Amino acid sequence: MKLNDWLNNEIPNIANSLVDVHSSYFSIEKTIGFAGQQKVYTILENFRNALFPCLCDKFPTFDTRVNIGIGNKLRSSALDLKDLIEKVVSNENNVANNDVTLDADQIVMDLITKFPDIRNTIQTDIQAAYNGDPATISTEEILFSYPSILAITIHRIAHELYKSGVPIIPRIMSEHAHSLTGIDIHPGATIGEYFFIDHGTGVVIGETCTIGKNVKIYQGVTLGAKSFPLDEHGNPIKGIKRHPDIEDNVVIYSGATILGGDTKIGHDSVIGGNIWLTQSVPPNSRVYQTQPSPKIKND
Amino acid sequence: MKLNDWLNNEIPNIANSLVDVHSSYFSIEKTIGFAGQQKVYTILENFRNALFPCLCDKFPTFDTRVNIGIGNKLRSSALDLKDLIEKVVSNENNVANNDVTLDADQIVMDLITKFPDIRNTIQTDIQAAYNGDPATISTEEILFSYPSILAITIHRIAHELYKSGVPIIPRIMSEHAHSLTGIDIHPGATIGEYFFIDHGTGVVIGETCTIGKNVKIYQGVTLGAKSFPLDEHGNPIKGIKRHPDIEDNVVIYSGATILGGDTKIGHDSVIGGNIWLTQSVPPNSRVYQTQPSPKIKND
Amino acid sequence: MKLNDWLNNEIPNIANSLVDVHSSYFSIEKTIGFAGQQKVYTILENFRNALFPCLCDKFPTFDTRVNIGIGNKLRSSALDLKDLIEKVVSNENNVANNDVTLDADQIVMDLITKFPDIRNTIQTDIQAAYNGDPATISTEEILFSYPSILAITIHRIAHELYKSGVPIIPRIMSEHAHSLTGIDIHPGATIGEYFFIDHGTGVVIGETCTIGKNVKIYQGVTLGAKSFPLDEHGNPIKGIKRHPDIEDNVVIYSGATILGGDTKIGHDSVIGGNIWLTQSVPPNSRVYQTQPSPKIKND
Repeated sequence: MKLNDWLNNEIPNIANSLVDVHSSYFSIEKTIGFAGQQKVYTILENFRNALFPCLCDKFPTFDTRVNIGIGNKLRSSALDLKDLIEKVVSNENNVANNDVTLDADQIVMDLITKFPDIRNTIQTDIQAAYNGDPATISTEEILFSYPSILAITIHRIAHELYKSGVPIIPRIMSEHAHSLTGIDIHPGATIGEYFFIDHGTGVVIGETCTIGKNVKIYQGVTLGAKSFPLDEHGNPIKGIKRHPDIEDNVVIYSGATILGGDTKIGHDSVIGGNIWLTQSVPPNSRVYQTQPSPKIKND
Repeated sequence: MKLNDWLNNEIPNIANSLVDVHSSYFSIEKTIGFAGQQKVYTILENFRNALFPCLCDKFPTFDTRVNIGIGNKLRSSALDLKDLIEKVVSNENNVANNDVTLDADQIVMDLITKFPDIRNTIQTDIQAAYNGDPATISTEEILFSYPSILAITIHRIAHELYKSGVPIIPRIMSEHAHSLTGIDIHPGATIGEYFFIDHGTGVVIGETCTIGKNVKIYQGVTLGAKSFPLDEHGNPIKGIKRHPDIEDNVVIYSGATILGGDTKIGHDSVIGGNIWLTQSVPPNSRVYQTQPSPKIKND
Repeated sequence: MKLNDWLNNEIPNIANSLVDVHSSYFSIEKTIGFAGQQKVYTILENFRNALFPCLCDKFPTFDTRVNIGIGNKLRSSALDLKDLIEKVVSNENNVANNDVTLDADQIVMDLITKFPDIRNTIQTDIQAAYNGDPATISTEEILFSYPSILAITIHRIAHELYKSGVPIIPRIMSEHAHSLTGIDIHPGATIGEYFFIDHGTGVVIGETCTIGKNVKIYQGVTLGAKSFPLDEHGNPIKGIKRHPDIEDNVVIYSGATILGGDTKIGHDSVIGGNIWLTQSVPPNSRVYQTQPSPKIKND
């Protein structure tokens, strides 16, 4: 068979060549690889099952065994997470400040300890979805079918790791959420309780954004950067405040774009659909554009 | 090992705490859990394999065995679906009108009985994609790679369950479609035959929308609510008509937003890209905006 | 049990009926089926693991065994791909020009031979992401968590198969990327090196688009068709140039729409956010719209 013979002859050289190319850019020993990426997804699934325990996960369990099931998931995923953290920091290119030594054990302990608090906060997000959407009467429906809840659950976990200085893993988590929901929240963003995103596809929330309590956002909203300064080599300077601040009780309708690190949306404001906003607005503002009236022609 | 010891000591308390928090909000016995959510996905996959049978699903089968394979999938998924329906209605918080008793057996029978009709309708959707997209010459390509077909297949199943009054499960189905395609169709929406969505990311079609025959929609289109009345507690009143009606033979170009329960788009109309429309238009309308001419500056 | 009895009695007829409906539209023997669709996804995963080899894929392997692992993945996926190509071309409805006979062995050999080049090109895409995004300091983070890299990796593979004339499979690949990232790049699009899409949800790049080197695109950008001519039966004529050309060093900000096969964006141009553009612009252009100033009302 033509292809089979060719593969037997050529594949060793091509494989060598691919290893050569890859290892000229990446340290093969120090990368977590796609296997590590997949393991992050499994950890998230286990954490999610622990945060929302029930009697019917995978195999039916009964009453008092629920917490044993949760415990086992938490324990094994905690240890996996510790290993991954140690792996990503073993590559010095991943770490902004090489002076800081991360204590992976402590970081994982801190995260797990916060889980009951995180769970309570997510309940406020579920309540916000219930309050904000006439299409549902059931918090269970919200838990199992609202992309906002999946995205914010993952965000609230990833954000803790981001604050602890863990590289890469928080972004793998947030991109996993993005892939599943179309909602792209950078793990650096600070988000208050009672947060709700309706529909969600196309939402982008940047790294240095802060969002207050009880904020509601619709699909296609960007909270982004206006522009960013370059260093002497023409590369963007990392770590500068470049995304807006949204205060409490703000509603932002679909397709609105709010840009800039010194843009602040005052509390209790409403930002209309498709608005393009690069300036601050005071509290209690109603921001809208005179939409060009559509021209209607009849054949 | 520091982390391991800590986990052994602390996990039982944290697990208990998570169970306490969760069970203060949800009835652990009555929820379908994430396992139920996953089972809905499996049911959908089996239904899809039954609707589009072939000789090469998972294991090669031959000629006359195809219908046996389909039969087995339908049978086991039908029974799983019945169990899930009974589970979700066991939680009275999930059911709008507690007077109505749902007959899960009958609901599943009604759904499966409609499968040949549903299949025929989806064929009209495949044909609409073929007619509407110059990028393909093959209906098989459309079946296996057009997000519109995946989304409408799941919608046509979920919509039947929605009409039967099944809570939660139709929304889990539609959100699964949303996650896979970026197309967010509420299972309540009524959609006629020969329906096509091109590209699809960001499309939102609300619960009380009605869409006629032979309608074509592009990416980023919202058929949404203008605003919704609140009850005396400040909560949105559920179940009110709040999304537009789209009549037959309408084309809606990318990024258009059409809002409101009393907005009707007359048949044979064309709605231009990025239009923001909150009023009805008569049949045969061409709706466009004078786009502000872009300013072009040359350095 | 009511449902169980009904299923035993009725399922054989319904299954027969579904086979009848489906086989009146599709050749059951010639379709790759959903199993083939899944196999394409597995092939892509194996190709991606081969392009970015590491020591920790699924099972830990060591040093010199990396290339053996890659080799095995490449070999088995190459043979699977050959089988799938032969299957899709066995259905004459999938092939535009029946005079051309595709040599599946040769197509697969050509693809695998190009893998080191493809890998080098993707490294330029990783570098472009690094240069263009202040939110990261690590190329490993980009590799494992940037949707742009996943989308362009799949595109660069799918585009080779598209150029070889393989039907269906390239579109299954590109739609898989779309499903995972929200980025919809038709496999026909020609894209130069150092390509970066930030965030990416909602991006649409049409079949006959050409994109130069060092182009940067943000979320929600459409590079689409203006309209397309119909043949005497009212069907769109397939295979006509209908999407824009983007020259080198162009930046296109979020939500911009650029349409038409004779629209050319000259090199070193910047297209502003939300721009709607259906005309060419010369090199070094800055294209923006006078945004209607938002009206701000305070309660």
